[in-house]
Amino acid sequence: DYQHVQVPFEITLWIMLASLAKIGFHLYNKLPSVVPESCLLIFVGLIMGGIIYGFNDKSPPVMDSDIFFLYLLPPIVLDAGYFMPSRPFFENMGTILLYAVVGTVWNVFGIGVSLYGICQVKAFLLQDISLLHNLLFSSLIAAVDPVAVLSVFEEIHVNEKLHILVFGESLLNDAVTVVLYKLFRSFCEMPTIKGVDVFAGVGKFFVVGLGGVLVGLTFGMTAAFTTRFTKDIRVIEPLFVFLYSYLSYLTAEIFHLSGIMAIVACAMGMKRYVEANISLKSHTTVKYFMKMWSSVSETLIFIFLGVSTIGENHEWNWPYICFTVIFCLVWRALGVLVLTFFVNRFHVNTITGKDQFIIAYGGLRGAICFSLVFLLPEFRRKKLFIAATTVVILFTVFVQGMTIRPLVDLLAVKRKRESAPTVGEQIHIRFLDHLLAGIEDISGHWGQYYWKDKLEYFNSKYLQKLLLREHNQPKSSIVLLYEKLERKHAMELAETGQLGHVPAHPSFLGNDRTVLTDKNLEDTLNLDALEHLQEILARNLYRIRRMGPAYNRHTLPGDSEHVEHAQEILILRHKNL
Amino acid sequence: DYQHVQVPFEITLWIMLASLAKIGFHLYNKLPSVVPESCLLIFVGLIMGGIIYGFNDKSPPVMDSDIFFLYLLPPIVLDAGYFMPSRPFFENMGTILLYAVVGTVWNVFGIGVSLYGICQVKAFLLQDISLLHNLLFSSLIAAVDPVAVLSVFEEIHVNEKLHILVFGESLLNDAVTVVLYKLFRSFCEMPTIKGVDVFAGVGKFFVVGLGGVLVGLTFGMTAAFTTRFTKDIRVIEPLFVFLYSYLSYLTAEIFHLSGIMAIVACAMGMKRYVEANISLKSHTTVKYFMKMWSSVSETLIFIFLGVSTIGENHEWNWPYICFTVIFCLVWRALGVLVLTFFVNRFHVNTITGKDQFIIAYGGLRGAICFSLVFLLPEFRRKKLFIAATTVVILFTVFVQGMTIRPLVDLLAVKRKRESAPTVGEQIHIRFLDHLLAGIEDISGHWGQYYWKDKLEYFNSKYLQKLLLREHNQPKSSIVLLYEKLERKHAMELAETGQLGHVPAHPSFLGNDRTVLTDKNLEDTLNLDALEHLQEILARNLYRIRRMGPAYNRHTLPGDSEHVEHAQEILILRHKNL
Repeated sequence: DYQHVQVPFEITLWIMLASLAKIGFHLYNKLPSVVPESCLLIFVGLIMGGIIYGFNDKSPPVMDSDIFFLYLLPPIVLDAGYFMPSRPFFENMGTILLYAVVGTVWNVFGIGVSLYGICQVKAFLLQDISLLHNLLFSSLIAAVDPVAVLSVFEEIHVNEKLHILVFGESLLNDAVTVVLYKLFRSFCEMPTIKGVDVFAGVGKFFVVGLGGVLVGLTFGMTAAFTTRFTKDIRVIEPLFVFLYSYLSYLTAEIFHLSGIMAIVACAMGMKRYVEANISLKSHTTVKYFMKMWSSVSETLIFIFLGVSTIGENHEWNWPYICFTVIFCLVWRALGVLVLTFFVNRFHVNTITGKDQFIIAYGGLRGAICFSLVFLLPEFRRKKLFIAATTVVILFTVFVQGMTIRPLVDLLAVKRKRESAPTVGEQIHIRFLDHLLAGIEDISGHWGQYYWKDKLEYFNSKYLQKLLLREHNQPKSSIVLLYEKLERKHAMELAETGQLGHVPAHPSFLGNDRTVLTDKNLEDTLNLDALEHLQEILARNLYRIRRMGPAYNRHTLPGDSEHVEHAQEILILRHKNL
Repeated sequence: DYQHVQVPFEITLWIMLASLAKIGFHLYNKLPSVVPESCLLIFVGLIMGGIIYGFNDKSPPVMDSDIFFLYLLPPIVLDAGYFMPSRPFFENMGTILLYAVVGTVWNVFGIGVSLYGICQVKAFLLQDISLLHNLLFSSLIAAVDPVAVLSVFEEIHVNEKLHILVFGESLLNDAVTVVLYKLFRSFCEMPTIKGVDVFAGVGKFFVVGLGGVLVGLTFGMTAAFTTRFTKDIRVIEPLFVFLYSYLSYLTAEIFHLSGIMAIVACAMGMKRYVEANISLKSHTTVKYFMKMWSSVSETLIFIFLGVSTIGENHEWNWPYICFTVIFCLVWRALGVLVLTFFVNRFHVNTITGKDQFIIAYGGLRGAICFSLVFLLPEFRRKKLFIAATTVVILFTVFVQGMTIRPLVDLLAVKRKRESAPTVGEQIHIRFLDHLLAGIEDISGHWGQYYWKDKLEYFNSKYLQKLLLREHNQPKSSIVLLYEKLERKHAMELAETGQLGHVPAHPSFLGNDRTVLTDKNLEDTLNLDALEHLQEILARNLYRIRRMGPAYNRHTLPGDSEHVEHAQEILILRHKNL
């Protein structure tokens, strides 16, 4: 009775194949260190596609665009948004937006118009491709792909700023791509194009992008609000994180908004509240499952990409395909150069030449282009476009993806710092934030620090009260235990009358206000600020240095954190007593 | 663009509704303590069905049998199998099988034939229902439903044996139900029935049941074997547990074997090896997600049950429906009485009258019957059967489900013991096991202890070597730390020459054999037995009494275990030093 279970059975088998392929690569440790996993997976897909093609004598099934956009893409983007290091992202927001919006438009028109130029050469037999078709094609080929970028950049460990610039661009250019692609597609079907339509397109961009963000934030806040009430049924807490994120993506898609922007906004918005509300085990499950899901999705995407490449739906035209690859490289390089020139004029922290090269070189294309090209309306040259897209993707993933790591080594690009910031640094950063916010306020310049400060105020004044649970701050059980022991210790001290030492002992000061005799000390210090300092101190008290804000698809940050915490506490206690 | 995302959007919304309904119930603490959650959920479903019916003026969508059997049932059965307390299950295996096989056959024929008798009364206008149709109907209505039983029994906390008897029966009668249902269905379509077909049916039962178990064990062992190699990619470990279990279910379904038996066998088979192979965090995720998934599935099933009840696909016939309910109760009660009489003759631990009453009364029907009745081939009286099934389900879930808790209180049925067995008890149980195995071996009686001993031997000799990772026994990090500290302590003692106390200190003895001077002590004791004893001692050293083998859908066992472990260690150290 195979027909009855066919759908779930085949899905399960595909996922199983993907997981086994991953295990297989990791059994041979040398392979993944030379070739990026994405290349290996595409290769597996190519072989499988060849086998299917050989046996069936027809093209293997092509990756369904619906499956890609509805089921495979959301987990990856959710994972990316949830684990996005928010500070560097917001600090470089302007640059990222410039690259994502202006850069993408630049690429689309650059590539489209140049390809149209190529089409005018009679010897190439391409005169039937109109300017509009070329622009439609360039709108789908111009966008950098988040899946491909992530899978390569998480292995090369460049510095945080460089990483967030490429990664952020790949996420945020979705809105531009969606708008331009749909615009050109509707232009293709219109008899004449009026100026009004073009202006409507520009307006649409803002609606699509900001609308997506709005939808995402709405769902994120609702998710945070819902997790306030899950105290009695912990097991379904992780579910809400996934359900609301997915709903935000789908809702955005319903209204033709940017689903990627929505899910990223939802994940970033809900993260801090959800983390505070749900239990530690739920949170482990959320993080673990997100990683697992995105990892499997990514694997499936690359395998399908390989499988779909094999087949008879290609039309080969050397000049068009070669020039597509060349223009993709050239226009991206030019775009990065020009945009960075403007960025560097307004910033103290400039983007170096090496960084610019890596940004330009890291513009990988991936499965999004591939799915979009299959969604094109039927016309004579669709197969040529499919062939060109496939070549560009394979070229960027294989050639650029495999050479970027040696190049990073060769150019000695600044790497990510290995250790987490020390207590001193953290205090300094926080202090500078406050100071700069104050200076901006006084000078009347409403810069990022001013807005950040206002947002924090709004957050602690209204949002936290609405979204956070009241009596339940789920810290790590070990931290709670530590506090309990400290409090006990403090009580013993108080009983024996040794209270003179108290103010020097931060933990004691915070947790045992009832036994404090010197109430004035508290009144002079701002209590909230004190608690923040204590938190930072408590967090850094035990040399947890490996907890960096790194993004990696395959590992969870702070994996060994709690164990070390416990060990350090025990060993210190052991020594003290 | 709603059509494009309709399927995932509606699925997500249904799950969301189910989760929110659950949260809603738990906000009012009094409600779930009086009414079982299943009743509340069916009630919500009924209201929703009414709303849909009122607005659309047509019957709301009926729960699709495919969706139920392929997507909703497997998570619940997987969860049940994975968290099944294996010792009481195997100890009462004979009784469970008797209830599940003989009991179900008894019920099917009892109910079927009695209903046929009712049909002969001319005044009831039921003469057109043949004996075969009655038997077909009774084959689907006779089986106790695991989902309904679980959701009620996990709230009433009866003693372990009683729980496992009802629960085990509800899981294992699947094979009987499947065979009888398919047999009678094929008989209905045959022109004449030969004796050979009946015998083939009996043979089929063994194939379906044992085949399912075999498929499950195969996949379980493969899963365990696969997790040997996931050291480098921890994040996809949980995936394999789910993938292999689901594959075992689907594979069994392909060959018309019992999918429920397969997935239970798979879960029980792989559990101990997978647990030892995967990391602690992966295991938390596995457990958490299993609970989450089964909890959501269960919620959806009950809501759908409610929604599907409303509508126009019922044919009402008072006598048939009333007598169905009465016969279901009477034949189950008779069956339990007769079978228990035989069981009690061969056992020292008899099943008391109270227990028998609860077993008979706990025979709840649920969604499996409901899905099967919709799968019936079309014939005139199908709507009557649907109505009768609906009434039986609602009667058992509402009336029996709501009154069973007061009855358990009233009859003072022996409850589950709250505390885990003490060290002394554990040692005694283990000792008795060995002793009984020896006695059975000598007397030539190959009973359960003999086979258990042989199985353990086979397991440690072959299976563990094949399925377990070699150098990696992932214990709790705290236990590892404790061992480390103890070893350090022992070394200090050894350095100061206080080794006279050593043999009295079990931890020290095990972990630090190199510093022991008295080697003879070790040689006289069996080293493996010593390690087992040490393990039991170490596990019980810190009063973790709440870690019972209880099954509960909504909580994870040993939730606070590690925290307490840590606390106890710290506080003891604190006192000691």
